[in-house]
Amino acid sequence: VRAEVLAVGTELLLGQIANTNARWMSEALAAIGVDVLHHQVVGDNLERIVDAMRVSSGRADVVIVTGGLGPTQDDITRDALGVLVDAPMVRHPELEALLREKFRSFGRRVMPESNLRQADVPEGARYITPSRGTAPGLVAEIPGGARIYAVPGVPEEMVEMMEGTILPELVSEAGEAVVRSRVLRCAGIGESALAERVDDLFSGSANPTIAFLASSGEVKVRITAKAATAEAAEQLIDPIAEEVRGRLGDDVFTTEDETLEGAVVRLLTDAGTTLSCAESITGGGVGARITSVAGASEAFVGSAVVYRNDAKAAVLGVSRKTLEGPGSVSEECAREMAAGARRVFGSDLGLSLTGAAGPESHGGVPPGVIWIALEGDDVAHARGFQVPGERDRVRRWAEQAALDLVRRHLEGRPLPASDRLI
Amino acid sequence: VRAEVLAVGTELLLGQIANTNARWMSEALAAIGVDVLHHQVVGDNLERIVDAMRVSSGRADVVIVTGGLGPTQDDITRDALGVLVDAPMVRHPELEALLREKFRSFGRRVMPESNLRQADVPEGARYITPSRGTAPGLVAEIPGGARIYAVPGVPEEMVEMMEGTILPELVSEAGEAVVRSRVLRCAGIGESALAERVDDLFSGSANPTIAFLASSGEVKVRITAKAATAEAAEQLIDPIAEEVRGRLGDDVFTTEDETLEGAVVRLLTDAGTTLSCAESITGGGVGARITSVAGASEAFVGSAVVYRNDAKAAVLGVSRKTLEGPGSVSEECAREMAAGARRVFGSDLGLSLTGAAGPESHGGVPPGVIWIALEGDDVAHARGFQVPGERDRVRRWAEQAALDLVRRHLEGRPLPASDRLI
Repeated sequence: VRAEVLAVGTELLLGQIANTNARWMSEALAAIGVDVLHHQVVGDNLERIVDAMRVSSGRADVVIVTGGLGPTQDDITRDALGVLVDAPMVRHPELEALLREKFRSFGRRVMPESNLRQADVPEGARYITPSRGTAPGLVAEIPGGARIYAVPGVPEEMVEMMEGTILPELVSEAGEAVVRSRVLRCAGIGESALAERVDDLFSGSANPTIAFLASSGEVKVRITAKAATAEAAEQLIDPIAEEVRGRLGDDVFTTEDETLEGAVVRLLTDAGTTLSCAESITGGGVGARITSVAGASEAFVGSAVVYRNDAKAAVLGVSRKTLEGPGSVSEECAREMAAGARRVFGSDLGLSLTGAAGPESHGGVPPGVIWIALEGDDVAHARGFQVPGERDRVRRWAEQAALDLVRRHLEGRPLPASDRLI
Repeated sequence: VRAEVLAVGTELLLGQIANTNARWMSEALAAIGVDVLHHQVVGDNLERIVDAMRVSSGRADVVIVTGGLGPTQDDITRDALGVLVDAPMVRHPELEALLREKFRSFGRRVMPESNLRQADVPEGARYITPSRGTAPGLVAEIPGGARIYAVPGVPEEMVEMMEGTILPELVSEAGEAVVRSRVLRCAGIGESALAERVDDLFSGSANPTIAFLASSGEVKVRITAKAATAEAAEQLIDPIAEEVRGRLGDDVFTTEDETLEGAVVRLLTDAGTTLSCAESITGGGVGARITSVAGASEAFVGSAVVYRNDAKAAVLGVSRKTLEGPGSVSEECAREMAAGARRVFGSDLGLSLTGAAGPESHGGVPPGVIWIALEGDDVAHARGFQVPGERDRVRRWAEQAALDLVRRHLEGRPLPASDRLI
C-alpha cells in the first residue's frame, strides 16, 4: 500500500507551526508497513486543496488529509472533498445531534449555527465519529482510484482517528510486509558516543537497521526490521536488540518506549519507595513530568518549588550560612534542599535541583551551571555540571539529569560524578 | 513572488523527524513578502525528486529544495537537478580544494574520494559556497520557468545559505509586497464562539485576512495584511485590529504574541505584586511555566506541589474537615490551598489548582473536574469547571484557566464563575 499525507493549513505555509502531524502519521504508517512516498502541504484555498487531493490520489492508494475540518469559514477540506468526488453535501441529523450534545457537555450555552457545517458529509462518503473534538472525519473512495481519509488538524483528534479507525482498516486490508521497531531510550550520553559503541553491528545491514534520534538529554535508539509477519520481524530484532542493550548498559533507561519520568514512577512503585522534590531552576517541571504519569500518587508525594532564596530558607530550611556563603547554586544548597524536601514531605527520597538557567548570571554563577542532589537512607549524592545553550534547554537538561539520577539509584547503577565547573 | 519548499529525505517520510526546515524557511519567506503556496516532501529517489522539482517549478517562481546534498550515496538532489535542467555535471576545482581543506581542518586524515561528488555542479548552474558544512548550495534557472535553489538539509547549513544568499537575492530582486501579521491571543473562550464575534469584519476581505488557531485553552487570532511597505501593511492592520480587540475584550490576554505565562509575569511585575501557587492536579506545571519566563523571580516566590492529601494538610494546612468532607477536589480545598500558599510563601497572591486528571475517578470525582482559587487582600475567588479529554489535556486546561484567572484579576476584569459540575 502506498500512502500520502496531505496537510491543509495556511499556518503551515506561513511557518507558524511545523508539520508534526505528518511526522506522527508517517511514523504510524511505517510501523504497519505502509510506504509513504510524498507529503504535501497546501493552504486554506479550495482550488489548491482540490488540486493537491487530485495529485495525491493519482499516485497513491491511500491519501490522508489532515486539517481544515473545523467549524470556521477557513475550514474547507470538507468542501474540497465534495468537489473532488463531485457530490453534494448531505447534513446528517445524527451528527447534528452529536454536535449539540457535545456543546452542552462542554458547558457552553449556545452553539453557533455555523458549527453545523461539521455535520455535512459529501454524498456517498463515510464519516468517522469524533470522540474528543467536534469534527467528524471523512472517508471517500475515488472511483477506480485512491481512498481519501480526512481527519482534523488538532493533533489529539488526528491521533484518535488514526488509531481508532484508519490504521486498523489499513492493517486488516493490507496483509503486507510488516515493519516492527524496538526503541531503547538512553539518558546521560551523547548521540555520537552512543553510535560508536554499536555502529559496527549494523554496517552493511539493511534489515534490521538502526537509527539514532537525539533530543535534550536523551537519545532514542531505534532498531527496525521488516518481515512477512510481526513475529518474524520481532525475531530479527531480538538478538541484535539484546546485543545493543548489553553494550549500552547503564545508559539505557527503558526498552519499553516509556518516558524517563515513566521509568522513574515504575521503579519507585515497584520498590515501594516514595519521592519528593525541591525545585528551584526547573520551577516545578520535574513534579509536572512525574505527575504526567497516571498513578504517580503511589510514588510521588510533592515538590517544594522554592524560586526565591527566602522561600528556600523558610520552606526547606536551607541555612543562611549556605545562602550567604556558597549561595543558592551550590552543592551545599542542593544537598540541604534535598534533605529539606524529604523532611517536609516525609518521603523516602528527596531530589533537588538548583542552577542558573540564564540568560543572566545568577549571583555570580554563569548560566548553565546546575547542581542536583539525591538524599535518602542509603544515598547522599550531589552532582554539579554545566550545560550550554538557552534557558529552556538548560532547564530541560536539569530535569533529565535529576530524573536519571533517581533512575540510576533505584536500578543500583553507579551514580555520575560532577563535571569540572568553570 | 510565489515560492515553494521541497524537502528531500526518506527520514521525513518515515516520520523520524518533523519538517522543521520547511517551517523555518516559510516563516523567513513570509517575512519578506514571498508567498509560499505549497510544501512537498519526497524521499531519496531520483525519479520522484525530479518529478517533484518539475511540479514545483511549473507553479512557482522560486523553488527551494532542502536536503540530499551530502556526500553519501543516498544524497542525490544534485543529480536530480542535473536531470531536470538536462546538463552534465562539471567538477569545480575550487570546490574540490575547499572540500580537501575543510576535511583537514576537521582533523580527519583521509577524505573518502566519494566526497568529491560535492564539488560537482550541473553545467550552467551557480553554487553557494558553504561556510559551516561541506555541501555547496546550487542555483539553477529553468529556461522560461522557475529558479531552483538547493540547500543542505542540516538546519544550520540551510539557515546559513538562506540568510546569506537566498533571502537577500529575493529581497533585492523583488521590491514586492511585504506581509505583516498581528496576533491577538485569547484564553477562556472557544474558537467558534470567538470567530462568530468578528467573522463579519472579514467576510469578502482578501486583505487583511483573519485566521484562528486553537490549542488547549487558547486561541490565536492572526490578522495578516499585504502592502508595498511594512508601514502600509501595518496601517491596513491597525483599524481592524483595534475593532477585533474591542469586540473580543476581556478574552484577549495579549496583543504582543507573548505567552499567557509571559503576560502574567509582566502584569505581576508591573503591579509590584508577588504570586505563589499550590498545585495538586498540575504537579508543578504552573510554576514551571511561570519560571520559563526570564526574570520571573521578581514576581514568583514559589509553589507547593502537594500531590497527596497528607502533603496538603502538612505543608499547606488544609483542614482534616475539608479533606474528609468535600474532599481534595472541592471548592473548600482549593480555597484553603490558595490561602496556605500565600501564608507559606508570604506572597501577595496565592493561586491553587486541584482536580481529577484521570483516567480514573479521584475519590468519587469524575475525571476532568477542576477547582482553582485565587486569594489575596482584594480577591477571594474560586471556580469549578469540567474539561473533557485525556489527562494531559485536562492538566493543560487547568493551567490555562488558573493563569488566566490571575491575568483577569490583575487587569481588573470580571472573573469567570463556576460551571455547573456533573
